[in-house]
Amino acid sequence: MAYYGSPMLVDDLIFKPKHSLIDQSLHSTMGATTTNGDGFGIGWYGEGPEPAIYKNVSPAWNDANLHEIARQVRTPLLFAHIRAATGTAVQRSNCHPFRWGRWLWMHNGMINGFHEMKRDLMLQVEPSIFADMEGSTDSEMLFFLALSFGLTDDPIRAVERAVGLVEKVASDHGIPHPVQMTVATANGESVWAFRYSSEGKSRSLFFSTDVTRLRELYPDNPVLLNAGDETRLVVSEPLGDLPGAWNEVPESSAGIVRPGVDELIPFRPVA
Amino acid sequence: MAYYGSPMLVDDLIFKPKHSLIDQSLHSTMGATTTNGDGFGIGWYGEGPEPAIYKNVSPAWNDANLHEIARQVRTPLLFAHIRAATGTAVQRSNCHPFRWGRWLWMHNGMINGFHEMKRDLMLQVEPSIFADMEGSTDSEMLFFLALSFGLTDDPIRAVERAVGLVEKVASDHGIPHPVQMTVATANGESVWAFRYSSEGKSRSLFFSTDVTRLRELYPDNPVLLNAGDETRLVVSEPLGDLPGAWNEVPESSAGIVRPGVDELIPFRPVA
Amino acid sequence: MAYYGSPMLVDDLIFKPKHSLIDQSLHSTMGATTTNGDGFGIGWYGEGPEPAIYKNVSPAWNDANLHEIARQVRTPLLFAHIRAATGTAVQRSNCHPFRWGRWLWMHNGMINGFHEMKRDLMLQVEPSIFADMEGSTDSEMLFFLALSFGLTDDPIRAVERAVGLVEKVASDHGIPHPVQMTVATANGESVWAFRYSSEGKSRSLFFSTDVTRLRELYPDNPVLLNAGDETRLVVSEPLGDLPGAWNEVPESSAGIVRPGVDELIPFRPVA
Amino acid sequence: MAYYGSPMLVDDLIFKPKHSLIDQSLHSTMGATTTNGDGFGIGWYGEGPEPAIYKNVSPAWNDANLHEIARQVRTPLLFAHIRAATGTAVQRSNCHPFRWGRWLWMHNGMINGFHEMKRDLMLQVEPSIFADMEGSTDSEMLFFLALSFGLTDDPIRAVERAVGLVEKVASDHGIPHPVQMTVATANGESVWAFRYSSEGKSRSLFFSTDVTRLRELYPDNPVLLNAGDETRLVVSEPLGDLPGAWNEVPESSAGIVRPGVDELIPFRPVA
Repeated sequence: MAYYGSPMLVDDLIFKPKHSLIDQSLHSTMGATTTNGDGFGIGWYGEGPEPAIYKNVSPAWNDANLHEIARQVRTPLLFAHIRAATGTAVQRSNCHPFRWGRWLWMHNGMINGFHEMKRDLMLQVEPSIFADMEGSTDSEMLFFLALSFGLTDDPIRAVERAVGLVEKVASDHGIPHPVQMTVATANGESVWAFRYSSEGKSRSLFFSTDVTRLRELYPDNPVLLNAGDETRLVVSEPLGDLPGAWNEVPESSAGIVRPGVDELIPFRPVA
Repeated sequence: MAYYGSPMLVDDLIFKPKHSLIDQSLHSTMGATTTNGDGFGIGWYGEGPEPAIYKNVSPAWNDANLHEIARQVRTPLLFAHIRAATGTAVQRSNCHPFRWGRWLWMHNGMINGFHEMKRDLMLQVEPSIFADMEGSTDSEMLFFLALSFGLTDDPIRAVERAVGLVEKVASDHGIPHPVQMTVATANGESVWAFRYSSEGKSRSLFFSTDVTRLRELYPDNPVLLNAGDETRLVVSEPLGDLPGAWNEVPESSAGIVRPGVDELIPFRPVA
Repeated sequence: MAYYGSPMLVDDLIFKPKHSLIDQSLHSTMGATTTNGDGFGIGWYGEGPEPAIYKNVSPAWNDANLHEIARQVRTPLLFAHIRAATGTAVQRSNCHPFRWGRWLWMHNGMINGFHEMKRDLMLQVEPSIFADMEGSTDSEMLFFLALSFGLTDDPIRAVERAVGLVEKVASDHGIPHPVQMTVATANGESVWAFRYSSEGKSRSLFFSTDVTRLRELYPDNPVLLNAGDETRLVVSEPLGDLPGAWNEVPESSAGIVRPGVDELIPFRPVA
Repeated sequence: MAYYGSPMLVDDLIFKPKHSLIDQSLHSTMGATTTNGDGFGIGWYGEGPEPAIYKNVSPAWNDANLHEIARQVRTPLLFAHIRAATGTAVQRSNCHPFRWGRWLWMHNGMINGFHEMKRDLMLQVEPSIFADMEGSTDSEMLFFLALSFGLTDDPIRAVERAVGLVEKVASDHGIPHPVQMTVATANGESVWAFRYSSEGKSRSLFFSTDVTRLRELYPDNPVLLNAGDETRLVVSEPLGDLPGAWNEVPESSAGIVRPGVDELIPFRPVA
């Protein structure tokens, strides 16, 4: 889940029950994934130039410290992720979101054949950032490949090249349909979201309708009255019960959430 | 899950896939409860007079050390428990099984109104063992009440008195249907199992059919050939796919698994 | 360590290296206790009516999340505690500070003979708050005894009665010198600190010199220029290298840190 | 600490107090490093072809499960390691001993400039085992370099080549004195121990005197009477108080502990 908008208490975004578009939807998100007990993480922009991260290997619903922190932290840009491990160790360094400088990154999905391709992919990571990889997941590798291909300058192009590389290496290894992903990344000012799979059967991704439009639909909803015009949520599942609130990101697309007009464009891996 | 029989590798009892009555059923057990991520524990009789316990707050399926230990430990009497917390902290001291001297105890269910009754119940714990309580759960309290009422001398009578006390205190507080339980306890030579609820709607409990009888039903099953005659499993759910392998413990019953003839008798709380 | 003053980043109080009276002293504190690896905790007043707590059983210096949070949280009133366990389980519910409503409590020291006296002490805890005790330590018990004796109305009197009770019960059990303590408690507006031991040989406790006086001594110190006039630190050890910065709390004393004039008075247990 | 000899209860090797050469010395070992709270691990040969490992990030002295397991596991070959991290994450996959097939590996010391050299070293790891690296430490890297250079065939030669490579790469990077190490590795039948540093100032390493010789020195010591003739301990510090019990491994040496005559030979890195 990615939140971008007026500063909100994390508790209101990920724990508080019902009575608001956001809470409700997020709570449903959490509920839908409570069997994902392989760690969780939140990342947010607050004090200082770099985003903060709080990650843990215990199930989110059991983490008493998370409840405490969620009631103390306000942020205009929050990433929250619940992990279902796909073969790599359950350890903090493998939990999402990942951070590099001002950038956050989280990924749902997997790289098929990752164990087999790991060395070849690793060799494409820019040497100057090579040793900054802390964990052992395919998700972090994808992040560092994107960084190596210029994520901080042109995020969409960089992810297209990273995914293109993975598909190329997979092809060399005879591995079919290597990439399955929804990805979100941010630099504190904008959020980029991606939906793509080599097979063309990507897991779902949704973004919330423009708040000004939602206010017209639901003039009495107090949450919508308080939400800033720029408020946008990106989530894995069509949540909440307000018709018109959610829009599916099409297959092979990239979206940009930022001050001003957001954008949705095709995503085409570059080999 | 309680296992009593010829010494088995814990791995064969709780992790190994299919191909045997026991593994299969146990694996299913684990599978049926994988959303119970609030800690787990195993207890077994091995070296030394006291049983050993291994308990952890992380989900069982993520505990790499558990996999290691399961492949090293052989035991004729194993308790395994996966916890779904009902309001008390997720910490090792609240995980089952609990141990006192040679005794193990585990409980599925809950004491309704426990928070309200806690002090009154605690006052009934024998002062000499009072400070041995390490956690904060209703399950451990029930164990210590049973110990206070003579568990080590007459287990069934002691549990009847412990449950009777809880029902009495609940009645004083105006709390309906306070007890919901399946309980297993052992001293290294026998296992006692209980199924009871104040309301008369207890969660299920099953015990495995006598092995000599099962061998007649399934003369080609290699696991049954190797299993000792005394082998008995007590589980929460009717598992595996061998017709005739499982028998439901009736409502308000206590069973004794021990060398020689096992027994099943009515369970009647004593106020 | 207790901090009271102008809002500070927790990082500046417990992690940042040297270059300031506060950081330096606190860093020394942390250094002096790095062998205390039995958990740690911080408690602070921030958003909402209740203080927040972050506690963990891992050593503080290894907790990556603590570093993250410390760089995000600003507070005018911080408690920080590193635990050296004295016989009870290493679990989050046994870490300091403890919280009840708006109150925080932390304790260094121990109740000798606690295991033996536990039941008798527990019986004196007010029934309405009895079930709120979450852990198994002597420190939390002392907190709940103080709460039972009116901590929220008259903190010093309540602690005097709690300590008096412990000494009374110890006497009944023939246990000599039961209490060894430095305690700090707060309600968000004031901090109370106590130094006492039954034997008259209490562990040390120090409070920082009035900031206006320190500025006269060190007119060039930038930290002192920025620190608010009400800033006060209470620590276990005489830290930092500014002569005149620290004052020992005398044996059997209680101190009050609050807006306006602080106070230091004799502490006399009441049986 | 590495133990090789007649099967012993792990508890007797790493926890039991005094009264025996072994316990005493090991207990001292543990005591000498209790400030090393960055995880610990044990590895042992027991059931099945591969050694078992139990590793955890919490301090060893707080791990209740370790105490349980130590009282249940008997082994003729035990590795025990307490970690003091040198810059990489405190996570299970970074704890020692490391395992690959039948091999265990543990390391005290560090590779200076590891962050800088990491990529170059990683490229020398045999592609077929590349993805088996689970953590991020210099210690595990050294293990996989040694495996890549033939550890399973000629352990001493392989470690000489691995260390030689590190020194070569360090030289290319202008990093002085890159290697500081005592290393132990085993395959279940023999133990190899190494003491080496590029600077020629290695941390200490000791091995126990031949048991038949020790029995002559201490004819009344019951532990020595029970210890098998092949019993040998390798430890970091000269422990215990039996004069003649410990012998320092010389600078730049490798030792082999195995059935029959042990051996001590010079260790010379091969570039």
